[in-house]
Amino acid sequence: MTEPFVVVGGDAGGLSAASKFVRESAGDSDDHVPATEREVIVFERGQWVSYAHCGTPYFVKGEIDHLSDLLSLSPDDVESRGIDLRRGHEVVGIDTDAETVTVAGPSGDRHTQSYGDLLLATGARAITDPIPGTDADAAFTIHGLDSAAGLRALLTPVDDFSVADLGGGDALDSEEAARYGAMDPPETVAVVGGGYVGIEMCEALAAWDVDVHLFQRADHVLPAFGEAVAEVVEEHLREQGITLHLGEAVDHLEQDETGRVSRLVCTGGTELAVGAAVVGVGVRPNVELAEGTDIELGESGAIATDEFGRTSVAGVYAVGDCAEMHHVVTGDPAWVPLGLTANRAGRAVGQTVAGDRTEVGGIAGTAVLKAFEQECGRSGITDLAEAREAGFDPVAKTITAGSRSGYYPGSEETTVRLVADRETGRLLGGSIVGRDRAAIRIDTVATALEAGMTVGEVERLDLAYAPPFSPVWDPVLVCAKVLAGALSE
Amino acid sequence: MTEPFVVVGGDAGGLSAASKFVRESAGDSDDHVPATEREVIVFERGQWVSYAHCGTPYFVKGEIDHLSDLLSLSPDDVESRGIDLRRGHEVVGIDTDAETVTVAGPSGDRHTQSYGDLLLATGARAITDPIPGTDADAAFTIHGLDSAAGLRALLTPVDDFSVADLGGGDALDSEEAARYGAMDPPETVAVVGGGYVGIEMCEALAAWDVDVHLFQRADHVLPAFGEAVAEVVEEHLREQGITLHLGEAVDHLEQDETGRVSRLVCTGGTELAVGAAVVGVGVRPNVELAEGTDIELGESGAIATDEFGRTSVAGVYAVGDCAEMHHVVTGDPAWVPLGLTANRAGRAVGQTVAGDRTEVGGIAGTAVLKAFEQECGRSGITDLAEAREAGFDPVAKTITAGSRSGYYPGSEETTVRLVADRETGRLLGGSIVGRDRAAIRIDTVATALEAGMTVGEVERLDLAYAPPFSPVWDPVLVCAKVLAGALSE
Repeated sequence: MTEPFVVVGGDAGGLSAASKFVRESAGDSDDHVPATEREVIVFERGQWVSYAHCGTPYFVKGEIDHLSDLLSLSPDDVESRGIDLRRGHEVVGIDTDAETVTVAGPSGDRHTQSYGDLLLATGARAITDPIPGTDADAAFTIHGLDSAAGLRALLTPVDDFSVADLGGGDALDSEEAARYGAMDPPETVAVVGGGYVGIEMCEALAAWDVDVHLFQRADHVLPAFGEAVAEVVEEHLREQGITLHLGEAVDHLEQDETGRVSRLVCTGGTELAVGAAVVGVGVRPNVELAEGTDIELGESGAIATDEFGRTSVAGVYAVGDCAEMHHVVTGDPAWVPLGLTANRAGRAVGQTVAGDRTEVGGIAGTAVLKAFEQECGRSGITDLAEAREAGFDPVAKTITAGSRSGYYPGSEETTVRLVADRETGRLLGGSIVGRDRAAIRIDTVATALEAGMTVGEVERLDLAYAPPFSPVWDPVLVCAKVLAGALSE
Repeated sequence: MTEPFVVVGGDAGGLSAASKFVRESAGDSDDHVPATEREVIVFERGQWVSYAHCGTPYFVKGEIDHLSDLLSLSPDDVESRGIDLRRGHEVVGIDTDAETVTVAGPSGDRHTQSYGDLLLATGARAITDPIPGTDADAAFTIHGLDSAAGLRALLTPVDDFSVADLGGGDALDSEEAARYGAMDPPETVAVVGGGYVGIEMCEALAAWDVDVHLFQRADHVLPAFGEAVAEVVEEHLREQGITLHLGEAVDHLEQDETGRVSRLVCTGGTELAVGAAVVGVGVRPNVELAEGTDIELGESGAIATDEFGRTSVAGVYAVGDCAEMHHVVTGDPAWVPLGLTANRAGRAVGQTVAGDRTEVGGIAGTAVLKAFEQECGRSGITDLAEAREAGFDPVAKTITAGSRSGYYPGSEETTVRLVADRETGRLLGGSIVGRDRAAIRIDTVATALEAGMTVGEVERLDLAYAPPFSPVWDPVLVCAKVLAGALSE
């Protein structure tokens, strides 16, 4: 009998792999000989498994009622798939020579587990270290469901609060939630960081009766989307009552005598009295397990992998927010921690380990986000300096066009920016913002990037046109036309 | 001095070509030597120019107020671009040896016009010939603005009607509109034909106080979208109060003593008393000018063209609804009369004639349509028989998935069907239906088709994911996964 397939991490990547492995091993696909009956064991150090991280802002907002709504699978679902799920078990060491992992159990006991194949799906964690004081009460990272539960508990008026309403079941840190539920809701909340998390949290917080202040160290929010998108979003955030502090670096957070965050202080001197803070200044891959082993990290600091998700050590794979994948535009390794990537790569590794070698696919860095009524999307390389670093000579054009035929009700201004390489005409990336079906239009860009299309080819795409959905020339096509014109100059 | 660039037809294709030609000749692009100053003359036999055919259902519905809203350019706009526009002038003959056209003027006078280059952009016309009786009053094809104006005039209560409200200016056939405006509105309207026009007209008519009956000879509406889409649309049409007569071929229309359509009779015996009828049973390319010349027609009956829109005769081009283009999936000539194609090909020919040779691009047959609250899209080859005829071994799969993360409010069932070639795995086509951003998602399919992607490559696309817009696996990806699985069996 072969040693088990051991998975470290019970979220998107790990459970996608385990599930696909079980299905494939059971012979659900007919194209290969079923693998021998090997066990799959998933070690998850926390209590939550398979949860939708991207849904947490909407839980905080109150648009989604229960934490349980955010779980793709309950622990029981996982077990019933034939996966040996061990929550509260932390893998603390790997011996790649002996092919074993060391596991710390809930009571601190340690044991050794052999593996046949090993998957590291340890995810990422929110970083807060540039900002002292984030360990105060009522300072949240919204990385993980307990953090989201704590913030919603705090925002809920004390008399209306009950832990049961959070719908977290036995996985929830009830004590912590109850503690926040008993505190007075904040009047003012600072959001530190104008990336995805920050922008989504502005919308979530504004749904409660609080003043929201967004602090962004750079001059614009959403740097990954470029200035053209950022400016539209910033104007919209202000319309929605969010106070923006752009170009303001937060120096530290202060706390009151109870330990609750009470003041935010910027390096430039700006101060703000706050009753809570949300810190979303970035994430970092959880790679500690790989350190000190032969499992190599890439330049980004995440675990280096090949087209099948294999690390530098035979039999050891890595997927999701802890791993690099190859970028479809540059062909180079890149670290872009996003949900679909983790799911897809996990699924591919599960299939590979079951005996059907499957590529994990590349990443284009496609991301979309809702900022109140504005929809934003981006894909590929949109930053000119980044494009130059990858060896391109980038040219960018930005246009604003209607989302529908001008005469049809509901047409909304849609801004598109595309970047291409001057010499080859190849599309390198794009971003988009608008209120009417804008985000989904980035899929055209993502698909064109995967195909390595030139801007001229994009310009000639036979895209959808009907007055209620798109003008004759879709905004993406309008931008491609303008960029193709610029390239031919 | 060179002979002028003569364009036959003043709608999307013709005016796109003339406009681009003028801009390029003026040296607006810097990449080539400006052409010599050549005239461009556009002959349009009617009074309307540059109008948005696809918007007419929404004018009939009353969602768009004025006919003038549907004009991209007024005749004055056209003239001010430096285009010599001659409305009411019909080109009745071409002498390709002498390089002249014969033009019949408004008063019946004829003259000969020399050309340096000639563009045929004569469009298509609605066919009604399979159904006798469509020449009755109150039987409309909705091909052209006068037809749309007549129907809206008829639907408007007599006391509320004024010709001026139609906003058609001097191009409108006011006499005809006034005549319809004076008639009693119909109580029951038959829509003959369940294609694009028929479905859009159901929505338009239902906005008025009339009973709408849709007659479709085939067993399903929207044959170009496939059964899976059709069934969703049919259920929705019924919910909206439309009476469907599927598999019912209309034999003829009868008229009353005033000459107004009064009864519809099916070959199977079904009869219906009606006060108006809309006949949308197809269109045919206007190729009479090419007949009897050396300008070859393709198998479809439309004018054969190459990758630059050139016909078989040097110096003669054809674009839009009268011309074939190459299909991106089969590589063969195909005739798919749609708006974007005409605009894009016209623009390319204008550029080519101005001296900068430009490809017209291919067609994927991408089409989207609104059927009340349902959005439908299709692209490529979706019919299995058609795929076999083109030499493929087609495999199709249909899935239904949510349009957003399941826990996020507003997720709607979205049905996707994809077709691929068994041997190569190449994606051949797809269709989609759903209420939430479904139509625009077909652009992913259209782009993948243009790139010649396999289903496996589509499955690995890095598409947009955020709970408000898409589940982790976009419905198109879900279908690609299932189809890829079927292909590997």
